[in-house]
Amino acid sequence: MTFTVDFKVRDYECDLQGIVNNSVYFNYLEHARHEFLLSKGLDFAELAACNINLVVIRSEVDYKSSLKPGDTFFVEVKVERVSKLKSQFLQKIVRKIDGKLMLNAVTTWTSVNEQGRPYLPEEISCLFDSL
Amino acid sequence: MTFTVDFKVRDYECDLQGIVNNSVYFNYLEHARHEFLLSKGLDFAELAACNINLVVIRSEVDYKSSLKPGDTFFVEVKVERVSKLKSQFLQKIVRKIDGKLMLNAVTTWTSVNEQGRPYLPEEISCLFDSL
Amino acid sequence: MTFTVDFKVRDYECDLQGIVNNSVYFNYLEHARHEFLLSKGLDFAELAACNINLVVIRSEVDYKSSLKPGDTFFVEVKVERVSKLKSQFLQKIVRKIDGKLMLNAVTTWTSVNEQGRPYLPEEISCLFDSL
Amino acid sequence: MTFTVDFKVRDYECDLQGIVNNSVYFNYLEHARHEFLLSKGLDFAELAACNINLVVIRSEVDYKSSLKPGDTFFVEVKVERVSKLKSQFLQKIVRKIDGKLMLNAVTTWTSVNEQGRPYLPEEISCLFDSL
Repeated sequence: MTFTVDFKVRDYECDLQGIVNNSVYFNYLEHARHEFLLSKGLDFAELAACNINLVVIRSEVDYKSSLKPGDTFFVEVKVERVSKLKSQFLQKIVRKIDGKLMLNAVTTWTSVNEQGRPYLPEEISCLFDSL
Repeated sequence: MTFTVDFKVRDYECDLQGIVNNSVYFNYLEHARHEFLLSKGLDFAELAACNINLVVIRSEVDYKSSLKPGDTFFVEVKVERVSKLKSQFLQKIVRKIDGKLMLNAVTTWTSVNEQGRPYLPEEISCLFDSL
Repeated sequence: MTFTVDFKVRDYECDLQGIVNNSVYFNYLEHARHEFLLSKGLDFAELAACNINLVVIRSEVDYKSSLKPGDTFFVEVKVERVSKLKSQFLQKIVRKIDGKLMLNAVTTWTSVNEQGRPYLPEEISCLFDSL
Repeated sequence: MTFTVDFKVRDYECDLQGIVNNSVYFNYLEHARHEFLLSKGLDFAELAACNINLVVIRSEVDYKSSLKPGDTFFVEVKVERVSKLKSQFLQKIVRKIDGKLMLNAVTTWTSVNEQGRPYLPEEISCLFDSL
C-alpha cells in the first residue's frame, strides 16, 4: 500500500496569483517524506541532532495544475534505491475532490556526515536495504 | 552581461539542520527571476493583477552545497526560448566569498490566461522574441 | 464549545534553534482564524477576491514555551467585538501531549474596502453581531 | 544614530490579498534584530550552536499600512533593557518612497540555557550593560 499524507491548503501558502506558491510544494513534499521516514522508524530531527544529515541533491518537479485556497489533497511517497549511497523519492500530489494529479516529483537524497561527506549510517542503510 | 541579484542568507531561512531549507532556494530563484523580468519592463505582480499569469511548469534543481547563516551569494539569471509558448530560465546560485557554485536550476515557464490555458500576451511575446 | 483546529509541527517550520520559528506561529494563528471564519460561512479567499479585505491591525503574543519537531497541538479561537468596526480574536496554542499552554495571542481585526478605508460589509457585520 | 536594515518586498512574501502577509513582518523584524546583534559582535546562529538561545517572550505589533510588491523599506532597531534578564527591541518599519510608518513593534527577549531556563551569559550581559 502506498504511503500518503493528507493536507489542506492554508491561505498563507497562496501568493498574489491566488494559488499555492511554487516553493510551498517543496514544503509539502518534504513534510510527506519526513512522515514516511518516521513511519519507518527514522526521525529526521533526531538524526540531524546526531549530525546525521539527510540531504537532497536533486529535485525534478512537474507542475500539472495549481492548488487553490481550501483544496484538500494528499502527497504520495514511494522510495527507490539508486546506488549504494543514494535513494530517490517518487512523489505525487493528488487533489482529493477529483483525484486530479497536481504535481509529480523525483527527489534524490543521500546522507552526509558532519563534514558534508557522503556517509551511510546503519540506520539509513537498513532503510535502503528494505526498499 | 549576465543578470544577477545579490542576497544574504537570513537566519529564519535556515532549518533544524542549521542550513538554508531546500524550499527557500525556490524563493531565491523566484525573486531573481522576477527582478530579471522587471529589468525587462515586466512586473509579475501587475501582470497577475491583469490576469496574465506566468506559471512554472517544470523545475530541475541540482543542490551542490548548502548555504549557511550569514552567507552572501548571488543568483544568476539567463533565459532561453524553448518553443512558441515556453521559455527556460537557467539559474545558478554562487557563494560570494569563494565563487563556489551552490546550486544549478532550470525552470520552464509558460503564461496562461484566466482559465489556465496557455496564452502568450504581446508583452511576454516581446520578451521571448528578444531572447 | 470552543472552536479549535488541530496541527502537527512540520520540520521545515523549525529554525536553527531546533524549535518552531516565531513567525510560524502567526501562520498557525491565521490558518485557525480562517478556519473559524469558514465555519461561520465566511471564506477569506473569496472575500479577498471580492475586494473585501479583513486586515489585522494589532497583534499581541505571549510565547510561553516552544513547539518542537513532531509536536501535535491545537489552536483555540474565540472572537469578541470591541467596537463598531473592530473585533478581537483570542487564541491559545495548546500542546496535546500534556495540555501545556504554549502561546497566548490577541489579534485585532477590521475590514477595509479597496481603498484601504475601514468598511463593514453585511457579511462581516452579521458575524460581528452574532458574537 | 539609529540602526537600520534595508529591504525590498519579494513577490513570494505577498499573499492572496496582494500584500505582504502578516507573518512575514516577523521575518523582517527578526532579520533586522539579528543584523543589529551582529553589529554588536553577537552572532545569533553561533550562539544557538553553543546552546545559548535568545528567545522572544512577547511581541506587540501595530500594523499601520500594508507593504506591497516592489516596495522598498527599512527596519529600524533600538533596544532597551527592562530587567536583569530581559530586554526590549523597539522596531519600526518605514516605507522608503514617502517615509510612511508601516508598522511599530515591541519585542521582549530573554536568553535561556539548554533546559529553557532564563540564563544570561556574559556575552549577552555585556550587550545589555552597554544599552
